[in-house]
Amino acid sequence: MAPIKIGIIGLGATGPTLGPGAWAVAAHLASFTPSPNYEIVAVCNSSVESAQRSIAFHKLPPSTKAYGKPEDIAADPNVDLVVVSVIVTSHHKVAKPVLLAKKQLFVEWPLAASLREAEDLARLAREANVRTIVGTQFRADPAVQKVKELVQGGAIGKVTSTQIQYSPAMGPPDMWMDAAPYYLDFKSGGNEFTIAFGHLLDSFLYVLGDFETVKASLSKQYPIMKLFDMSHGQITNPAVPRTAPDHIFVQGVLQSGAVASINYHRPGALLGKNFRWLISGSDGEIEFTLEGYLQIGNSEREIRIKTVHEPSEVRVVEWKGEMPKHVESVPFPGQNTALVWEAFASGREGVADFEDGVRVHRLLDRIAREAGSPYAEYVEEM
Amino acid sequence: MAPIKIGIIGLGATGPTLGPGAWAVAAHLASFTPSPNYEIVAVCNSSVESAQRSIAFHKLPPSTKAYGKPEDIAADPNVDLVVVSVIVTSHHKVAKPVLLAKKQLFVEWPLAASLREAEDLARLAREANVRTIVGTQFRADPAVQKVKELVQGGAIGKVTSTQIQYSPAMGPPDMWMDAAPYYLDFKSGGNEFTIAFGHLLDSFLYVLGDFETVKASLSKQYPIMKLFDMSHGQITNPAVPRTAPDHIFVQGVLQSGAVASINYHRPGALLGKNFRWLISGSDGEIEFTLEGYLQIGNSEREIRIKTVHEPSEVRVVEWKGEMPKHVESVPFPGQNTALVWEAFASGREGVADFEDGVRVHRLLDRIAREAGSPYAEYVEEM
Repeated sequence: MAPIKIGIIGLGATGPTLGPGAWAVAAHLASFTPSPNYEIVAVCNSSVESAQRSIAFHKLPPSTKAYGKPEDIAADPNVDLVVVSVIVTSHHKVAKPVLLAKKQLFVEWPLAASLREAEDLARLAREANVRTIVGTQFRADPAVQKVKELVQGGAIGKVTSTQIQYSPAMGPPDMWMDAAPYYLDFKSGGNEFTIAFGHLLDSFLYVLGDFETVKASLSKQYPIMKLFDMSHGQITNPAVPRTAPDHIFVQGVLQSGAVASINYHRPGALLGKNFRWLISGSDGEIEFTLEGYLQIGNSEREIRIKTVHEPSEVRVVEWKGEMPKHVESVPFPGQNTALVWEAFASGREGVADFEDGVRVHRLLDRIAREAGSPYAEYVEEM
Repeated sequence: MAPIKIGIIGLGATGPTLGPGAWAVAAHLASFTPSPNYEIVAVCNSSVESAQRSIAFHKLPPSTKAYGKPEDIAADPNVDLVVVSVIVTSHHKVAKPVLLAKKQLFVEWPLAASLREAEDLARLAREANVRTIVGTQFRADPAVQKVKELVQGGAIGKVTSTQIQYSPAMGPPDMWMDAAPYYLDFKSGGNEFTIAFGHLLDSFLYVLGDFETVKASLSKQYPIMKLFDMSHGQITNPAVPRTAPDHIFVQGVLQSGAVASINYHRPGALLGKNFRWLISGSDGEIEFTLEGYLQIGNSEREIRIKTVHEPSEVRVVEWKGEMPKHVESVPFPGQNTALVWEAFASGREGVADFEDGVRVHRLLDRIAREAGSPYAEYVEEM
């Protein structure tokens, strides 16, 4: 197969650190560079000069085109698929011209800054009849794939209940980096609720399906945050009020009939692992634990199962499959993204499309509305 | 101090097994017999003859009075305190004459078959101005006492969230003993929701206080139950529909401001311990786990703590205190009841009174109403 020709919108002239344009470097550039399935042929930044700087910085081939507008990279006949890796508030504006040009499209999660915008992108994608990807890459994690395989293969019979406890590994709960203040702002659409919790929610929906009834308690236990500068660690603002919740407790009955509970809390779990997903069924129970970062791979993961068919034994399930060298070699934090790209190229499981993305947006909206004031009002205003 | 003179209503002529009148034998008789603080002076059963049989069976002193009516044992001037240990549907009817006679009163949990009846008993107790006890003995468990002491002593700072996962050790989730069909019946007032979950709820309220907002998802994952005979284990009815839920997921924000989640699920946890209570705070985290039965003591219990003051260390907390010989010697399942009686006699912590009982009833009612149909309707009809 000829490589898929990629245009990236938002590739910083920077190393794989944190900051504007850096995620595209750490995740996408790191995935494409060793892969035989992809070839970067164009870069689009806020200006042609910025794109040229990035092409030079990353030593991309001189033939790589530099663009300053989404419309221009979308119009490049040599580009098969465009990757949008910019701030979420710009997703809709940047992605729309790509869909109008009928290009395949990858957009980072959150798909858009609001459900309304996300639905509009999904509609445009249906009309363009193009393949889409949304960047909820946790579902490509081989451990998540294995959990899904076990559940759907009937290893524990009919699922009766599921419980997730998740406490992200993100440092002190009252501190945040000053380069990303939107993370504390509910109405930015790119915050702790939509990003950290949304990534988890996508894999939850992927494995167990949607909620029939949903209830939620959202809370800010650390309502006043300290902002710090990533480069030197010093506090740059000692008291910034947050509007995005730092505690997200969701429960309900799934369409399958099982009872579900997903609790997101801070601070990082002091006792035990920081992610634990229990799935109980009529014939057994699965426990999937993870220590470290959730969606970006390379964390310690463990799956244990006990069933009525082998009642005396708790079995640790092997989840690591064979990975192509060009995927396995992608370092943290890019590995799950590399798995998404590998699955996309080979037509395998683990790729979320815009319909999946809209489903997560819709559930986040339901959760916020159900949680009541002030979150229901925020959603109304978005 | 002279021993408190006890009259027991509902003492079976039976060993400490399961069945009518057996709990009073296993818990109360076992607690009173070795204690210097109590003396059984009267027994009341469904008839004077039945009470006489029980007195003889248990080799109580010949001076022990036998009664066939609650009014009669309540009128005995030699009785200081009456213990009511009969089926919950009779609690109100049996307890009321005792309060009218202004005797101290112990009533097993649930305090009554409905919130209305429980409130009426609490009102009568206030009017009689007598000391009362309700049999939610888990709060007397030294491990619960220790958790409360840690939390209220500020060991983890301000409590930000709490999460309980509880899966009772009660055998297959689709089987129940035919001697206690009320356990499957929501409107009996003495079922899995009020008993198994209610016992837990009392200790939750005791340690962390009440809910400001509460949400709940109740479900029957095993709606058709098999009834079996305890004496030979054979199934006596293969298909009895249940109305009481077997899954109780509750969440909300506490009056303290902390976020809370309490999940009760079946079957017994296959992986890990069957009770885990996490309490997270601004300065640390407490994990209280238990393996086995919850409220009746003698289970494996462990408390672990990690705080910002000793950040590198997870510390296992010693919770076993000194116990008087006459308490320590009480075998399973009576030990926590013995601790209640010891605390009552010495005026120490760990005794729930009727006001506490009403608080649990009220929260159970709120939960059922919030969970919606059919539970809200059941409560309305009770």
